[in-house]
Amino acid sequence: MKKEKVSSAVIRRLPRYYRHLNDLHMAGVERISSKALGESMGLTASQIRQDLSCFGEFGQQGYGYNVDSLRGEIADILGVNRGHAAIILGVGNLGRALLENFHFEHSGFTLTAAFDVDPAIVGQTQCGLPVYHASQLEDYLKEHPTAIGVLTVPRSAADSIAGQLVRGGVKGIWNFTNIELNVAGQGVVVEDVHFADSLLSLSYMISEAL
Amino acid sequence: MKKEKVSSAVIRRLPRYYRHLNDLHMAGVERISSKALGESMGLTASQIRQDLSCFGEFGQQGYGYNVDSLRGEIADILGVNRGHAAIILGVGNLGRALLENFHFEHSGFTLTAAFDVDPAIVGQTQCGLPVYHASQLEDYLKEHPTAIGVLTVPRSAADSIAGQLVRGGVKGIWNFTNIELNVAGQGVVVEDVHFADSLLSLSYMISEAL
Repeated sequence: MKKEKVSSAVIRRLPRYYRHLNDLHMAGVERISSKALGESMGLTASQIRQDLSCFGEFGQQGYGYNVDSLRGEIADILGVNRGHAAIILGVGNLGRALLENFHFEHSGFTLTAAFDVDPAIVGQTQCGLPVYHASQLEDYLKEHPTAIGVLTVPRSAADSIAGQLVRGGVKGIWNFTNIELNVAGQGVVVEDVHFADSLLSLSYMISEAL
Repeated sequence: MKKEKVSSAVIRRLPRYYRHLNDLHMAGVERISSKALGESMGLTASQIRQDLSCFGEFGQQGYGYNVDSLRGEIADILGVNRGHAAIILGVGNLGRALLENFHFEHSGFTLTAAFDVDPAIVGQTQCGLPVYHASQLEDYLKEHPTAIGVLTVPRSAADSIAGQLVRGGVKGIWNFTNIELNVAGQGVVVEDVHFADSLLSLSYMISEAL
């Protein structure tokens, strides 16, 4: 497969392609033109062709894209079928909401364990996952190679836990703590879900519109 | 205040400035150079000067920025002090996690009501908020002008509820449903928090790194 340096804007759009192609597939659509795909996603046909050309030759002039095969290619590019091991750090409301409602397996991850400090849940299982005490994290990671940590701990614990994850060899941190983690240059990818930043951006945009 | 067309990248960074300046203020820092602020945020000094110049003249050559006053200016720009009314649609795990843990008031919003269809909670209060049945939404919006709706309903209900919000005059939707809402061109700003897209991006980035 042709591989170029892919811009972060394209990386951001790939999951949207994947989502739209899944929906089309579920709706029984077998092929789609770049124009029609663009219209459903709010992009131009040429933008779509340009994005997808970063990864190889998809689609055929005059035919469009085969939905199922493009969906499969993008799934591979995204690593959806790799079953990376993931652990969740912090089983408060947000952690529990993710455990109970979010389909990690649809994004290529298998949850293997949860960590918390609350004696009421440590040693129990939550949604089928064993809950260990946070103090067991270092030992756990030695024995169980883990691709990512889902960080939903309180802000005050974020950097300490993140440091343990990095030393324990995780490749990525899905960070819900709304702080920037101090792990730059340590070979770990951080994906932030900053709720407060997101809502502040919305506040700005509606203030502009009012 | 000087106002130019502000790029979405700058809008995305503004909440981070606000967050960092809050932290600096809490730590007792009174002034900071663009260089030092940049280092703490992973940006260059010139990037910072350029970003902030979109909104007016802040800081002084050789002195840097007054932390508290810049923080106040950015708070105003973001609309943090406006107390916009917000309602939450869907009080499942995620809705409850937001209700119980997220400080809407820190981002300039006051939650005024919640909506759901579960008979076990409709008519009750959750975290001090009245929970109404979703069928009461339209009437509620007629009587209570509302700036934003926080959308945490199941995907199947998302477009229908979003349509009601738009017709009811909300200015913005904070969208957690992981689908693109069909509200383009209707004068409403949508801010997406797409968990699955975010995790897929992380999957891609760690696959690249592996």
